Parts: sequence; structure tokens; C-alpha cells
Amino acid sequence: MPVIIERLAIVGVGLIGGSLARALRAAGVVKTIVGIDIDRGNLEQALSLGVVNEVATSVEEGVRGCQAVFLSIPVCAIPGVVERIAGVIAPGCIVTDGGSVKAEIVNACEGLMPPGCHFVGGHPIAGTENSGVAASFATLFKGKRCILTPTASTDPAALETVSRLWKSTDAVVCTMEAGHHDRIFAEISHLPHVVAYALVHAVGTADVEGENVLSYTAGGFRDFTRIASSDPAMWRDIALMNRTALLASIDGFSASLAELRGRIERVDAQGLAEFFTIAKRFRDGII
Amino acid sequence: MPVIIERLAIVGVGLIGGSLARALRAAGVVKTIVGIDIDRGNLEQALSLGVVNEVATSVEEGVRGCQAVFLSIPVCAIPGVVERIAGVIAPGCIVTDGGSVKAEIVNACEGLMPPGCHFVGGHPIAGTENSGVAASFATLFKGKRCILTPTASTDPAALETVSRLWKSTDAVVCTMEAGHHDRIFAEISHLPHVVAYALVHAVGTADVEGENVLSYTAGGFRDFTRIASSDPAMWRDIALMNRTALLASIDGFSASLAELRGRIERVDAQGLAEFFTIAKRFRDGII
Repeated sequence: MPVIIERLAIVGVGLIGGSLARALRAAGVVKTIVGIDIDRGNLEQALSLGVVNEVATSVEEGVRGCQAVFLSIPVCAIPGVVERIAGVIAPGCIVTDGGSVKAEIVNACEGLMPPGCHFVGGHPIAGTENSGVAASFATLFKGKRCILTPTASTDPAALETVSRLWKSTDAVVCTMEAGHHDRIFAEISHLPHVVAYALVHAVGTADVEGENVLSYTAGGFRDFTRIASSDPAMWRDIALMNRTALLASIDGFSASLAELRGRIERVDAQGLAEFFTIAKRFRDGII
Repeated sequence: MPVIIERLAIVGVGLIGGSLARALRAAGVVKTIVGIDIDRGNLEQALSLGVVNEVATSVEEGVRGCQAVFLSIPVCAIPGVVERIAGVIAPGCIVTDGGSVKAEIVNACEGLMPPGCHFVGGHPIAGTENSGVAASFATLFKGKRCILTPTASTDPAALETVSRLWKSTDAVVCTMEAGHHDRIFAEISHLPHVVAYALVHAVGTADVEGENVLSYTAGGFRDFTRIASSDPAMWRDIALMNRTALLASIDGFSASLAELRGRIERVDAQGLAEFFTIAKRFRDGII
């Protein structure tokens, strides 16, 4: 494929940033990738694995002279880093991210861009259980969705460039409004995490005649609660950044649970079977 | 191993009943196994696979002359079947089950036993995603717990016989009070199912600008909600039979979720991280 970007900075060369670097290099659409990471060991590994061409430990240093910057860092850290690099990025530079919350990030970062530079919000829907550059691979995004969240003031050419970069990784690119994205991911990702954490917390603190009930759990419980093993700091940030949508999703879930609880309490056998059947149909429909 | 039971009836020759039959035959502790099942196709398969020695389509017919009967049928059906066979089982016959709710079953079935016959409640903690005799295998119970729930009036010899049968399958047998069992399984099994069904119901009915949000779900959501694909009729029965304990577990969970929701709403970053960290610690502790 023809080169899209001569020099790209990737801030945070972990699973996502590292996989993006690998995919872009495999596609031949970027000439030089500069890796930036606060984890020196991870960064050296990224260089020795050939995932990036150059490294920098200061983000201000690393982004200099780049036509594009991809931020793959905790969502709460994104606006702060954009503020730091705003004064040093090259004219026309495109800054984009991979954060799983969009409205607050896009709002903050658009306002931080110097004239002639462009922010484009993005969220690749891909990942594995593993983290770090060692876990990255070039086909992580193949066939997966990547959502871009342009606003009325997004530069069309910048959006097109970011879209072409993602398409070169074989991701399926789509665009939507940032708030719409956040409401969808509050439902399908942030709510399930909150529910899983609350469930494990409730079961872990349940007092059944003083016995540790977790010792009786089998594979089903382990599978169901796997996402409660996720990084607490990351989920704290996501929950707070997408607070409004998440609270609405929690309330919707609580209403469903209250409905279900009522049917159990009233011994409404038919209503209970109907509820479970509807839920099973939704679940089986997504396989 | 020496023969423990000459003639055993297994009512419901599916994954659990079929695996028990295979394991007992492999251990050589039962001479003849009579399979009984309302699904004729499944029953013929059990015979042709050599899982059982004989078959019967009427439970009254099948249990005649047996020293023990194992019931592997929906929990709500157990007391009714015990009532039907109570008049035809041989003197000294032991009736036991594999239902995942115990107090209501044990209470009902003990009272139905004719003098000299004995009921012993049981619950093997084993299973796979599959069902039917074709999915059964002799080592399903190996290393898994099997909980027996004797009462003050349980015949010690009958308990010992059931315990020896399960031990011959390489299950780890333990005993506990039926109500204690039900409170534990309300927490670690019945509550997670109810929560998964409620979550899928809530997400499936969520209206995010009219879009089907389930189309955006990825592997994490699918894994988390797999148990909402379970059989609605089975879970209706379990939820109703273990109603009291389950309602208490739902309330404990709702309190945990309300606490978590409050920390999100108050933007209590530290409290949120603490909650997630405690939950993660519980989760990681059970691996």
C-alpha cells in the first residue's frame, strides 16, 4: 500500500499501540514509527522487537516532526498529554486516540489543538487478556470494528487519513457521534464490568454461616467473573469519564433486575420463564 | 472395586446421569444399571453406547427391584417422581438425587419415603456446556466436589452407600446441611445466573437512539453472558425452589451495586479504585 504517514508517534506501545505499529508496518503505510512509553523496559522491548523504529522517553520530544500521533494511554491521561504536546507538534499534525470513552476526550482535546492541527477521536474494538508490547500482534484489528467519532468541526482530510490508517490494519471503520458511542459502550462494556465487580464483591463479602463461599465456585463462576480481574485503575477512569451514560445504564440494569426479582418473589413461574427466554434469545442472537 | 449396588436405576440419562453410569461401571461398583428417560431417542442412545444395561420408559417399571435410584431430572420434578415410585421401590431402597437445590427437595422427599427406604440429597458440582447422554463421560466427576445433605433422620448406612458410590467416581464427597448448601449456591451459582439474565435483558432492551447495541458486543460480553444461554425452564425451577436464599443474595448484590453506583455518582475516585481492587482480589483468589 502507498505511504499514508511519513512519521508517526505512538504514545503507549502496549497491546493496542504495539499491534497498531506492527499492522501499519506490515501494510507499509507508515515510514517511521516513534515509540513513546513511560515503561522503559517495555519501550526497549518494542525497539528490540522491531515494533517501532525509534524511541523517546519524553512525549514532547517524541512527537516532534510527526505528521500524526496515536495516543494509547489511560483515558484520563489523554487530555493532559494532548495539552503537553499541543505546543510542539508540527503544523497540520493529526492527533488521534484509542480510548474507550469518547465524548469527554473529544471535547477536551479538540479545544486544545493549535490552529491547523486536528484531533480525531477513535476506539478500536479489539483486545486480548494480555498487555504489553510482547503481547502485540499485527492482525489484532483484522475484521474488528474501529469507531471514529468526528464532530462538526473535525477536518475531513484528517478524518480520512485516520480512517485510511485503520483500514490498512484490516479493521472495519465506522463513524458515529461521540455521545452515541459512549451510551453504546456504557451498555455493552462499562455496565458489564461494573456488574461483574459488584457481583464478585457481593459474593466475596457474603456471610453464609461464616464460610468462604468462593471456595465452592466452579468454572461457570470463574468465566462469568473474569472481567472483574481487569485493571482497577483503568476501570475507575472509564467509569468516571463515562459517568453520566454509565449511571443511566446501571439504572436500566437495576430496573431489569428488580423486575426479575419481583417475578421470583411473587412465584410468577410463567413470567420468570418468559424473562429468561427473552434474555436467552438476546444472548443467542449475538453469537 | 467391590460391588456396592447390584441393580441401580438412573432416572434421566443425560450428561450427569450418563456420566455417573459410565463412572460407576468403569469402577465396577454396580452390576446392572437401568436407564429411564422421557426422551426415547436419548434412552436408546444410552443403551447402544453401553452406558446402561437395560432401559425402561416408565419410572415405576424401571425402579422395580433396584437397591438404589439416582434422580437426575429437573429439580421441580423430583418430589413428584419420588411420590410415584414410593409405592413400588424395593424394601431398603435408597433414593438419591443430583439437584442443585436441596432443602425443599430433601424436606419433600424424606416425607415420601416408605418405612425402611431412605432418601439422601446430593449435588455433584460438575457439568459442561453440553447435554444429553452423548456428551457424558466417565471422568466428569473426577476431583470435583459432590455435596450430600443428610438430615437428623437420614439413615447412616444409606448415607455411607451413596458416599461410596460418589467416591468411586473420584468425586470429593462432603456433607452439609441442606439450607447451608442452598445459601452457598444462591450466592455462587443462582445469583450469577439471575444477574446474567437481567444484564442481557437490560442491554438487549436498551434504547440508544434506536440502535441495536448488541451488534457492537465483542468477546468479553459474550463470555460474560454465556450463562444467560442456559435453559430457561431449568433456571425458572431453580430460582423458584431456592427462592428465599436467592432473594437474599439478590438483595446483597443490589446493595453492593448501589454502593458502587454511589461512588461513581459522587466521583469518589479513591473509593471506586478501592472497590474494584477488593473485587479483583476476591476474583483472583479463586483461580
